[in-house]
Amino acid sequence: MEQLHINGNRLWERLDDLAQIGAIAGTQGNSRLALTEEDGQARDLVISWMRELEMEVTVDGIGNVVGLWNGTNTTESLQPVMTGSHIDTVRSGGRFDGNLGVLAGLEVVQTIAEHGHSTEHPIAVGFFTGEEGARFAPDMLGSLVYVGGLDIETALNSIGIDGKKLGDELKRIGYCGTATCPGIVPKAFIELHIEQGPVLETSGIEIGVVESVQGISWTELTIEGQANHAGTTPMTMRRDAGYVASRISTFVREIATQIGGVQVGTVGKIDLHPNLVNVVASRATLTVDLRNTSGEILREAEDYLEEFCKEIASKENVVITSKSLARFEPVEFSEELVNEISSIASGLGLSTQRMTSGAGHDAQILARVCPSAMIFVPSKDGLSHNPAEYTSLEEISAGANVLLHSILQVAGECS
Amino acid sequence: MEQLHINGNRLWERLDDLAQIGAIAGTQGNSRLALTEEDGQARDLVISWMRELEMEVTVDGIGNVVGLWNGTNTTESLQPVMTGSHIDTVRSGGRFDGNLGVLAGLEVVQTIAEHGHSTEHPIAVGFFTGEEGARFAPDMLGSLVYVGGLDIETALNSIGIDGKKLGDELKRIGYCGTATCPGIVPKAFIELHIEQGPVLETSGIEIGVVESVQGISWTELTIEGQANHAGTTPMTMRRDAGYVASRISTFVREIATQIGGVQVGTVGKIDLHPNLVNVVASRATLTVDLRNTSGEILREAEDYLEEFCKEIASKENVVITSKSLARFEPVEFSEELVNEISSIASGLGLSTQRMTSGAGHDAQILARVCPSAMIFVPSKDGLSHNPAEYTSLEEISAGANVLLHSILQVAGECS
Repeated sequence: MEQLHINGNRLWERLDDLAQIGAIAGTQGNSRLALTEEDGQARDLVISWMRELEMEVTVDGIGNVVGLWNGTNTTESLQPVMTGSHIDTVRSGGRFDGNLGVLAGLEVVQTIAEHGHSTEHPIAVGFFTGEEGARFAPDMLGSLVYVGGLDIETALNSIGIDGKKLGDELKRIGYCGTATCPGIVPKAFIELHIEQGPVLETSGIEIGVVESVQGISWTELTIEGQANHAGTTPMTMRRDAGYVASRISTFVREIATQIGGVQVGTVGKIDLHPNLVNVVASRATLTVDLRNTSGEILREAEDYLEEFCKEIASKENVVITSKSLARFEPVEFSEELVNEISSIASGLGLSTQRMTSGAGHDAQILARVCPSAMIFVPSKDGLSHNPAEYTSLEEISAGANVLLHSILQVAGECS
Repeated sequence: MEQLHINGNRLWERLDDLAQIGAIAGTQGNSRLALTEEDGQARDLVISWMRELEMEVTVDGIGNVVGLWNGTNTTESLQPVMTGSHIDTVRSGGRFDGNLGVLAGLEVVQTIAEHGHSTEHPIAVGFFTGEEGARFAPDMLGSLVYVGGLDIETALNSIGIDGKKLGDELKRIGYCGTATCPGIVPKAFIELHIEQGPVLETSGIEIGVVESVQGISWTELTIEGQANHAGTTPMTMRRDAGYVASRISTFVREIATQIGGVQVGTVGKIDLHPNLVNVVASRATLTVDLRNTSGEILREAEDYLEEFCKEIASKENVVITSKSLARFEPVEFSEELVNEISSIASGLGLSTQRMTSGAGHDAQILARVCPSAMIFVPSKDGLSHNPAEYTSLEEISAGANVLLHSILQVAGECS
């Protein structure tokens, strides 16, 4: 049986076509927040490609889209082998994050089909609603609902950063479907994704075989102080919510530095009220993003933060309330699947490295219901969530070929 | 000659009428940023009162409004004695800040007129455009143009926090007038204002006689870092504009604490980009407000800030650019006028305290061209730039009576 290869140029072109929707002028990047007009157009385009490949397309009640491919020799009653990712982006994101995993899935199906090959198990390519969490919390919302980890009503009631309700926006763009949630449990889930970090590029490795995902803790803190005149209020009499927000932000850096290792901590969002040069801020909200591969150490980091908030609230005479926006325990992927992917990549002559994902991905959610794993390709300068995000055609083709042969193996290739 | 007294209830009612424009629902406060629709309506109302008092109203090219009152025995060719303040507010401000000084001026004129008294010098009541600086920088913009301290073209080109140009907004609300700038130099300028701080209330004093004003330094800092994924970017590889903004904000507190005394420092405005939970901020802007009564120490504080920005930019691999939004040297008021006000207040049986203003006021700008001084009345809980700002009817009446008799003395009372 001939050794199949994906068509890298075709995949690259689809990536480029998709990137025209929500393109950020003057860059190669994308702004396609979940359930915006742009997300709707991108969904339409990807579904049109699924239909060209004669895939059976279903949309579920949270807007997750699954294209199912039954080849000539496929046993339709068997569980599908699933691949995919997401097509929403952060507000100023790149064209590869998520999109690559979905379009590489289509390329895998097309490659198998056009060569007259088939698999015993059907192949499913999915894209999940709101993976980024950049508009609606939590992130990986769609896949969570897909596996039954989040109640669909709760998800539909999620309020976006623009004050809009997820359910309303889903209807508005016409993607409130009828397929049931939780969805069909796949035989396995394999996701191809860019690394979004500098590790592969720095070590000159072509394929990252992802064996685990960092745990994620997102907290929103709201600080209530008192508005006052910036000139006439003695420093000792202030209840400055802006200062407290800043001090928590620098403490998050201290947490990461003190714990060390793979611990990261980020305050990416701060909003002051009334946000004026000469008024002591009466209110501040900020988000804290903490991640670690160890569930225990992650809880430790959360404890440090909580303790610090108590101390500073008392010292600065402000009230701090805390709300969990997202919380995911670290995930270990299927050892068997990870080993298979690793040997397939090596068999294709590609250099590999076992690694942990610092980012959250739909695959970690699917891992709750089926053997799952991920394939990483390098990110130039480690950039992601940035319009300058870049992975070369060669690197992408290598990753898509590993995905192709991994799926063929798990789905049972037959020709 | 009978001893005149202002009509406190009438003044209080005008304050209440004016506060209906841009009222913040559920509070006693006001949101009337400069040159908004609300500011326009407030201007119309105050001018209608000026006209009822048969004052001659002029509007200059930056929208400053001056009502001139010539009593029966007034020598029109003499320089007017001027009082007034401003009627714009911060976004969530109170009803007394500025407004009191303008409406007390009208009350003084009405009291003199209705008792058939007059003055040798005419009396002018003015309100100056954009004193707060909460929409257009710098603060005290209108009075600066009035005294020739700021070129009118520069002022008209000031871009607001909403991206709109001052000159366009001035035209839109119909307040681009024909009176020339700089305006008529008054014989003296006396401004009644709430203290906006806790000093008078704490010491139980009725009248603050303001002999100086703190110097003010407003700086906008823009930090350029790099957007990156919050999960995958090791702490040591980050160029986090959000962290640097927070660290500068906490350093501003350190400056104030270290210098001590009357030094204050505030970061009231922080904006991150893209301002998302899981993206390391690529850009941040923040404002720094530093104030001191000593010009020398204020420069020292500015130097500390500049030095720190250099250090942290290098350490965190970001680029920091700095822009001065406003810079005012400390001001000493006219000793003669301050003494006169002080003895008038004592003569009225009121307790007085010499003090420094921590806030910037139009009077400090007028002090560049004529003998100037200010009268302060207490602020409940020291609150200002806050809808809860409050000064009682009795306290306000006391202040307005001191203003009345100070004006009568300087303008030369005749009956």
